[in-house]
Amino acid sequence: MGNTVKRLAILGSTGSIGRQTLDIARAFPDRLRIIALAAGSNAALLSQQIDEFKPGMASIESEKDRRKLKRSHCKLTTAEEIATHPDIDLVVMAISGMAGLKPTLAAIRAKKKIALATKEVLVAAGAIVTAEARKHRVRIMPIDSEPGAIWQCLQGEKNNVKRLILTASGGPFRKISNEKMNRVTAEQALAHPTWNMGPKVTIDSATLMNKGFEAIELSWLFDMPIDDIDVVIHPQSIIHSMVEFIDGSVKAQLSLPDMRFPIQYAIFHPERVPNDTLPRLDFLNIKSGSAENALTFEKPDIEKFPCLGLAFEVSRRGGTYPAVLSAADEVAVDRFLKGQIKFTDIAKIIAKALDGHRGISKPTLDDILAADAWARKAAAG
Amino acid sequence: MGNTVKRLAILGSTGSIGRQTLDIARAFPDRLRIIALAAGSNAALLSQQIDEFKPGMASIESEKDRRKLKRSHCKLTTAEEIATHPDIDLVVMAISGMAGLKPTLAAIRAKKKIALATKEVLVAAGAIVTAEARKHRVRIMPIDSEPGAIWQCLQGEKNNVKRLILTASGGPFRKISNEKMNRVTAEQALAHPTWNMGPKVTIDSATLMNKGFEAIELSWLFDMPIDDIDVVIHPQSIIHSMVEFIDGSVKAQLSLPDMRFPIQYAIFHPERVPNDTLPRLDFLNIKSGSAENALTFEKPDIEKFPCLGLAFEVSRRGGTYPAVLSAADEVAVDRFLKGQIKFTDIAKIIAKALDGHRGISKPTLDDILAADAWARKAAAG
Repeated sequence: MGNTVKRLAILGSTGSIGRQTLDIARAFPDRLRIIALAAGSNAALLSQQIDEFKPGMASIESEKDRRKLKRSHCKLTTAEEIATHPDIDLVVMAISGMAGLKPTLAAIRAKKKIALATKEVLVAAGAIVTAEARKHRVRIMPIDSEPGAIWQCLQGEKNNVKRLILTASGGPFRKISNEKMNRVTAEQALAHPTWNMGPKVTIDSATLMNKGFEAIELSWLFDMPIDDIDVVIHPQSIIHSMVEFIDGSVKAQLSLPDMRFPIQYAIFHPERVPNDTLPRLDFLNIKSGSAENALTFEKPDIEKFPCLGLAFEVSRRGGTYPAVLSAADEVAVDRFLKGQIKFTDIAKIIAKALDGHRGISKPTLDDILAADAWARKAAAG
Repeated sequence: MGNTVKRLAILGSTGSIGRQTLDIARAFPDRLRIIALAAGSNAALLSQQIDEFKPGMASIESEKDRRKLKRSHCKLTTAEEIATHPDIDLVVMAISGMAGLKPTLAAIRAKKKIALATKEVLVAAGAIVTAEARKHRVRIMPIDSEPGAIWQCLQGEKNNVKRLILTASGGPFRKISNEKMNRVTAEQALAHPTWNMGPKVTIDSATLMNKGFEAIELSWLFDMPIDDIDVVIHPQSIIHSMVEFIDGSVKAQLSLPDMRFPIQYAIFHPERVPNDTLPRLDFLNIKSGSAENALTFEKPDIEKFPCLGLAFEVSRRGGTYPAVLSAADEVAVDRFLKGQIKFTDIAKIIAKALDGHRGISKPTLDDILAADAWARKAAAG
């Protein structure tokens, strides 16, 4: 097994996860081959990536960008064709937001292994996606530090779990007063204290919606009731999450906060491979805001961060509600980034959309897509 | 598997580990049956234990105590007969010190599963004991929080280990000055900040010799070179030890400091069982000396705690040296407890014994017993 070459497709190659996945590919030129790259709108970067990695296939959304990508030996095609192509062993799904859903389902039906970074896919359509994965016997491997941590802690003992303890950095606004929350700017929200991520997920981290999404994602990935998932604020982002077993013993997974760890883990699973380009954790030199070499824990403030409570509530309601949560959040975050609304309006817009939604309890994919479209309109204001 | 009854022998039933093992037996009357109990000198407590648990066999060292233990249906016999009796499924080996070696070897040769609390057995004779265990296909399961933590972290992935990170509370003298170390009393040394243990291991914790023993124990249990085992001071004793894998990811095992956790884990392994009598870990209410809800880490001070350095050195030298370390320590700790020597003399006496010893590189059991006897004389002063 040590010398097999994995043939990868990266959907969303120009985003933060996509670029860091290519960093891992650079570190393992003999083990990972980039067969296909797909991007949304960043044709300039995709063009560079094609020149460096020489994939056989590439895709970009807009028609006018396609000519910039013309190369001999690189076929221009669609994200769906890439996700299902026979030359691909593993699809890295890193398209931001709900746009990741259809290629994910296509890849599952083509029986591809999937390393899934796009949590909105499981938030909005977890029941359908996990049912399809079971049906086609496809493994969905999470790319993210928290589900990656849970996954590692469950190695060798998937049963006997009492609860999952999902850690959260708390984001940039952990320490500011409730009163100042409606005056925070997009610039402040984008300055995440520990993680280097794309703009959507960084704002979601600032509202703690990202943690709510992760809780829902964990509930699908590891078949856990949402109320057996606890969120604990851990500002250092060293413990990436924990599992408490029925005997009271807890296992935790730790590393420095660097997304390349969970990316590499998912790509090579069940192998672990050394990678000297990744930073090492030194317990005698933990960079920490408060105490020296300390890992600290706090209770999340649900009143200050209502998005976290909304996510748990929506997960309990089920049906089309999580899709509405996800879609309304996508629109509200976009509007905040464009300066159209205040930071505290994000939660209000989502709550209003959820209030106005008439849920369907066992939705089809079309029901979910309709709820998504409805929520986008409702959140657009 | 859920309803099988395990038939236990506890050797050292009146000591700290023995008593806590009986606590676990009390919590699982339908799953654990106490078939045999063996003690050293505490006939009064053993007598009570016999009345409560009604074992079929019992043993005590001194002849004159035997009559106190006479019961119908309880045969008085030897620790070796107990360790090898056909009615026993699992031997809990909790005799303090080198006295545990012969019954351990007897149990291994009788192909009994062993839950081993007596770390001196592996320190002094690790090569012989692990070779016998391999030969007889017997599993040696550690009873102690640190090796138990490593064992749990390795579930499902025994390969790809880069190093073991052995945590230490630091003991009661972590914060006192080097100058005051020679004036500390046995009473102060016996007041361990986080663990409730017997006197020998509590003094070993105060000198950090216990941590050195654990490092040697880990090297045998998990086949790790001693220099791939790092000791980190972690005063809260919540993280019981960690494993760093080759990809830089670290797994940790956590619980409140209570020896019943590793005892229960070893007894029921590979099962985990709920036990409401054990305390639950609450990350929002960690009792900690320094910061609030914080887990902290420090570098061990080898100059202040020379026993730790001696243990690592002795492990590198191998042969009969670890047996000399263990035996000299047993004598020196006993002399300190009797008020005959100062706390700082413990390390000096051991170092002197090691200096005077002419090591044998591939010792037989007799060589080890001879080295042990020689070291006891050397350390007696």
